[in-house]
Amino acid sequence: MIMEVGVIAASGYTGGETVRLLLSHPKVNLNYITSRRLISKYFHSVYPNLRNISTLKFEEYNIVKVKEKCDVVFLAVPHGVSQDMVPELLEVGLKVIDLSADFRIKDDKIYKEYYKKTHSHPELLKSKNTVYGLPELHREEIKTANLVAVAGCQSSSAIYALYPLIKEGIIQTNNIIVDSKTGSSGSGAVVNEGSHHPIRANSIRPYKMTGHRHTAEIEQELTLILKSNKLQNEQVKVGFSAHGVNLVRGILSTSHVFYDDSMDVSEKLLFNTYRTAYGEEPFVRLINQKVGIFRLPDPKLIIGTNYCDVGFQLDEHLNRIVVLCALDNLVKGAAGNAIQCMNIMCGFPETSGLEFPGYFPL
Amino acid sequence: MIMEVGVIAASGYTGGETVRLLLSHPKVNLNYITSRRLISKYFHSVYPNLRNISTLKFEEYNIVKVKEKCDVVFLAVPHGVSQDMVPELLEVGLKVIDLSADFRIKDDKIYKEYYKKTHSHPELLKSKNTVYGLPELHREEIKTANLVAVAGCQSSSAIYALYPLIKEGIIQTNNIIVDSKTGSSGSGAVVNEGSHHPIRANSIRPYKMTGHRHTAEIEQELTLILKSNKLQNEQVKVGFSAHGVNLVRGILSTSHVFYDDSMDVSEKLLFNTYRTAYGEEPFVRLINQKVGIFRLPDPKLIIGTNYCDVGFQLDEHLNRIVVLCALDNLVKGAAGNAIQCMNIMCGFPETSGLEFPGYFPL
Amino acid sequence: MIMEVGVIAASGYTGGETVRLLLSHPKVNLNYITSRRLISKYFHSVYPNLRNISTLKFEEYNIVKVKEKCDVVFLAVPHGVSQDMVPELLEVGLKVIDLSADFRIKDDKIYKEYYKKTHSHPELLKSKNTVYGLPELHREEIKTANLVAVAGCQSSSAIYALYPLIKEGIIQTNNIIVDSKTGSSGSGAVVNEGSHHPIRANSIRPYKMTGHRHTAEIEQELTLILKSNKLQNEQVKVGFSAHGVNLVRGILSTSHVFYDDSMDVSEKLLFNTYRTAYGEEPFVRLINQKVGIFRLPDPKLIIGTNYCDVGFQLDEHLNRIVVLCALDNLVKGAAGNAIQCMNIMCGFPETSGLEFPGYFPL
Amino acid sequence: MIMEVGVIAASGYTGGETVRLLLSHPKVNLNYITSRRLISKYFHSVYPNLRNISTLKFEEYNIVKVKEKCDVVFLAVPHGVSQDMVPELLEVGLKVIDLSADFRIKDDKIYKEYYKKTHSHPELLKSKNTVYGLPELHREEIKTANLVAVAGCQSSSAIYALYPLIKEGIIQTNNIIVDSKTGSSGSGAVVNEGSHHPIRANSIRPYKMTGHRHTAEIEQELTLILKSNKLQNEQVKVGFSAHGVNLVRGILSTSHVFYDDSMDVSEKLLFNTYRTAYGEEPFVRLINQKVGIFRLPDPKLIIGTNYCDVGFQLDEHLNRIVVLCALDNLVKGAAGNAIQCMNIMCGFPETSGLEFPGYFPL
Repeated sequence: MIMEVGVIAASGYTGGETVRLLLSHPKVNLNYITSRRLISKYFHSVYPNLRNISTLKFEEYNIVKVKEKCDVVFLAVPHGVSQDMVPELLEVGLKVIDLSADFRIKDDKIYKEYYKKTHSHPELLKSKNTVYGLPELHREEIKTANLVAVAGCQSSSAIYALYPLIKEGIIQTNNIIVDSKTGSSGSGAVVNEGSHHPIRANSIRPYKMTGHRHTAEIEQELTLILKSNKLQNEQVKVGFSAHGVNLVRGILSTSHVFYDDSMDVSEKLLFNTYRTAYGEEPFVRLINQKVGIFRLPDPKLIIGTNYCDVGFQLDEHLNRIVVLCALDNLVKGAAGNAIQCMNIMCGFPETSGLEFPGYFPL
Repeated sequence: MIMEVGVIAASGYTGGETVRLLLSHPKVNLNYITSRRLISKYFHSVYPNLRNISTLKFEEYNIVKVKEKCDVVFLAVPHGVSQDMVPELLEVGLKVIDLSADFRIKDDKIYKEYYKKTHSHPELLKSKNTVYGLPELHREEIKTANLVAVAGCQSSSAIYALYPLIKEGIIQTNNIIVDSKTGSSGSGAVVNEGSHHPIRANSIRPYKMTGHRHTAEIEQELTLILKSNKLQNEQVKVGFSAHGVNLVRGILSTSHVFYDDSMDVSEKLLFNTYRTAYGEEPFVRLINQKVGIFRLPDPKLIIGTNYCDVGFQLDEHLNRIVVLCALDNLVKGAAGNAIQCMNIMCGFPETSGLEFPGYFPL
Repeated sequence: MIMEVGVIAASGYTGGETVRLLLSHPKVNLNYITSRRLISKYFHSVYPNLRNISTLKFEEYNIVKVKEKCDVVFLAVPHGVSQDMVPELLEVGLKVIDLSADFRIKDDKIYKEYYKKTHSHPELLKSKNTVYGLPELHREEIKTANLVAVAGCQSSSAIYALYPLIKEGIIQTNNIIVDSKTGSSGSGAVVNEGSHHPIRANSIRPYKMTGHRHTAEIEQELTLILKSNKLQNEQVKVGFSAHGVNLVRGILSTSHVFYDDSMDVSEKLLFNTYRTAYGEEPFVRLINQKVGIFRLPDPKLIIGTNYCDVGFQLDEHLNRIVVLCALDNLVKGAAGNAIQCMNIMCGFPETSGLEFPGYFPL
Repeated sequence: MIMEVGVIAASGYTGGETVRLLLSHPKVNLNYITSRRLISKYFHSVYPNLRNISTLKFEEYNIVKVKEKCDVVFLAVPHGVSQDMVPELLEVGLKVIDLSADFRIKDDKIYKEYYKKTHSHPELLKSKNTVYGLPELHREEIKTANLVAVAGCQSSSAIYALYPLIKEGIIQTNNIIVDSKTGSSGSGAVVNEGSHHPIRANSIRPYKMTGHRHTAEIEQELTLILKSNKLQNEQVKVGFSAHGVNLVRGILSTSHVFYDDSMDVSEKLLFNTYRTAYGEEPFVRLINQKVGIFRLPDPKLIIGTNYCDVGFQLDEHLNRIVVLCALDNLVKGAAGNAIQCMNIMCGFPETSGLEFPGYFPL
């Protein structure tokens, strides 16, 4: 059976990437994409790599049309906008996969703290049909969700790195450092001074050292793991710091975490911990080579793909574990995870439409 | 029917790219790859994007094994080496697709002039079963060829730009300028001073302004067109100049050509000329937009794909036509064309295994 | 004697670069910089490399102030604006060095053709006190000029490459090709879609293949040379094509020119021609090495400096000469030449404030 | 008085940069540079930006010549080589500034632990005439030193970030994280696979997460500060992790450090701490803006200069301070600091030859 799908706000980078992946997805028919600014223009007018390949055109957003044309709808509208659109989409019976941040945070107080705005539908935040869209952590709930809030790009990278260590109770949880490096596509398709080529090129810009919004998601998800594990009331605390680097796509997060002297942490324990977590996962790879240039995760190796590479090193010198996680912010950090969630929701093979292995060198 | 294929010297960039594309080709079984240096190592040890995806290992080259395991074999050995390997491969009945320059030039004198070496098998150069591997020009001959000499990366770009103009007799043929810009992967996988990152980054290096070897192929192929067209004995002369730019993949060639005052050249004529040449071609796109950022071909849009974008502008100011051609040197300029040739030789759909449309931005 | 100088519109890239160079110029006191948008802000708020180094602040533009504070004034206002500012500046007795295109073209009809606008002061265009600001060509006239129109960045690069060949009557002058590659700073400091990092990075964008405005200057200056030389009425015709590449600073122009069969062109002739032209020039270097990576000009080697590297190769195959010219669009292509002109106008040593030799690698 | 100076092993990147800076130093005469590989070749054959500017040639190394020609000598030989050269240079009465790592570590056991080699002159390591070459920390000792061991590039960046916090006793000292990002010139001028352009471009490579040699220097220097401060026997422990990014020059280190709940840490305290440490320093700038793109240190702003930018953010969420430090690995991280040390040793103004403020954008 072919699923009818649509993408709302398909001209931006996460929306556009969702379109790209859906166009070659074997189980869906993408027949509705919208953009307020580009109505009746071709999709390839903004994604010119698709000239001669797709004849899809942008349409106006309209709830009647969505209902008529789609079973599943992807929202790639700006943060703050989707919370007012989702209720009516759910009402008409659609499955909604939201790429914005609006439904990622369960607690509306924390939402307000980080997003400086009162959420218009806090009841949906708490609903058990609203699921945080990280397939590896919430596969079962996603199956029956009607609203999936796809994880943030940098959040995903941090959570993939850390969740196995939290789950196994290996590390201290109130002094977790995540030092993140990200490409310019993460700042979006709209021109802005920070993304002006003469400004952005050749820079390593520490742009958000403290208080980054993704901190909220990371702490929420890791705390959930911690609680489920320890049956106790601790709160994970993450010091998340984000740098812009001279790349278009790609995130590398370097997590620095500490373990207690009392813990008997070894490379073997860590290896087993990550293998247990990801051994069966189709898209998370454990990268820990003893030789060669690419011993640890590097965004260069996963650009354009839905793969997420995770690796670690043990530093007994100060009871530290360094965990690296590389992913493509627009794929595994957004559109790819969105489609993986759709595959789960729709009962498709989880890897459908996401098998592209990338190329090298690039 | 599944074809059994092999890639000889699969660790370099053109060999590796051939492997990458064959691994996801629906009609072939890639069961033999060789590398003298890496025997029994995994392919992913040098193409780490394929970790967890391919378990293919490098083997030793051996004519008995090749014969046993392959119907078609791709040669990605260095220039000068394949001419001594091809005869025995043909003898045992294999179809050979050679990515080196050894069999591209029909005239062994010109081969010697450009490659400073006497060809060891000039009879094969002239054989009608040896075909220059540019599918759009030699489709019919490729069908029955047993040896295909895949076109050079920069040569392809120049020929795609110019052949329609020569065919229609629009331009002067003794003062053709091709100003080519190419990424660093064109210099190969072996470390060398010119490709040292601190040296290569942030440069526009004019590395071969005159006497570039690809001149020979370009002139050979365009002269063939000219002769078939005009039934006369002229020789096309091309001034080919190559620059290294700050990219890993991609070629943009800018051809500057002149037409006679007597010619009534118009945008419409040019448009029709290119449409006639490429209107039915699956991988050559005509790019000539009136608006937007990407009005003309740009390598950015075809990286990782088998597409070749061609566009032109008419400059009546000095009876000049500027033709742009962008392609990925490792795909449409090497491995992609090689596989397109294989598809033609084997009667597969010509686009099999080559449909990836790229992503944007990158 | 210290000269008092000012820079009008000092926040953009050419204005800012002029400020940078003037700040360390031993003969001037920079005491007036303006910006409509940034009045009373520090210069280092937009040029943050100068934090702790300069305490200069932007002021409002005001003719009374300019007169009071300056002997020489640099205009870095947008094209079309300076033509209305210059008359009053001249009237109050200032020497004006205009970095815009407004006074480069002598013939107001050609100005209108290329700039689509009627010039408001055509009498100034033709005045012998208005001089085209290329020191190597107009040194004597600059000494007594009161208005210098600094040459365009890409124009400079083309003229430096070609003028010696025209002067010596070596080449055909109606089929000159200039294939130019330029960095993103050439598109200015104001954000725009073409300079958006995800769009601009990793591209080679052919953005203006025909009709580029710099064509007018190049033809004007080369025709002047031709006429002074040949005492005849020919017009030089240049096919100028510009590409944006993945650099912030730097231009490489590759000129392809033809000579008549009758000419006895040799490497030696060319070497002598360029040595005659530039042998005594402090900032134009002849680069023609037989060995090494950097045999010909490469922007990488002159970034941040006032040097202009010129080199050539002879291609007897089609009676072609290839001339390369590399310069920094913001220095030798704008602010550096402006200051070199000022040095000439003021009787300072011509190299004052311009001696920085760059660094390597970068 | 003009000092006669020499640079041994001047062809590599740190040696070459030392030459570049010395060539325009007003107080020295650089009259001896050596390279085993390039004897009698011009310096500009490897630093082609200096064509027409310097006629310096490489000579053979020879102790007699050094003595004859130099008062001060800079060593840029590989690690492990200088320890055998230094004794004879000191013996003949030269002042030696060593850019290698050989004399940075006071304790030969720690030297052996990190460099896997027994030091051949441990007595020199401990000598009070051997000084760690970080001018801001050891100005007084450098004045009378005869051997200065210039600090490592990444070490400098970490120490500049952290020393004021240690000095004032603000932070915990056994869990300091330094997450460092560095350009490709740090891997040297000799070609190697990791610096191959197709491999290095577009990557963020975590290349040394634990056990980096610079850890030893950082801990040594910070422990010295701690001890001088607290009069106690603690050892600073640093978790230093280094990433290669897509730049040629530049280091950004991001330090994540923790303070005790009991400490009353405020932005004001931190501001005062850094102002006290660096308020009078000519080359260390405190960067903490509330607005704009460049609020915190970014290597983009200091490339080519001897400036070191330091900034911080307070994260009360987990009692964390994030400290950023940006410098040019070849200047403030090597040759610039070497010359600043020379200026101190010779009684020159400390900023002589080091005033270049960089340019923007780049």
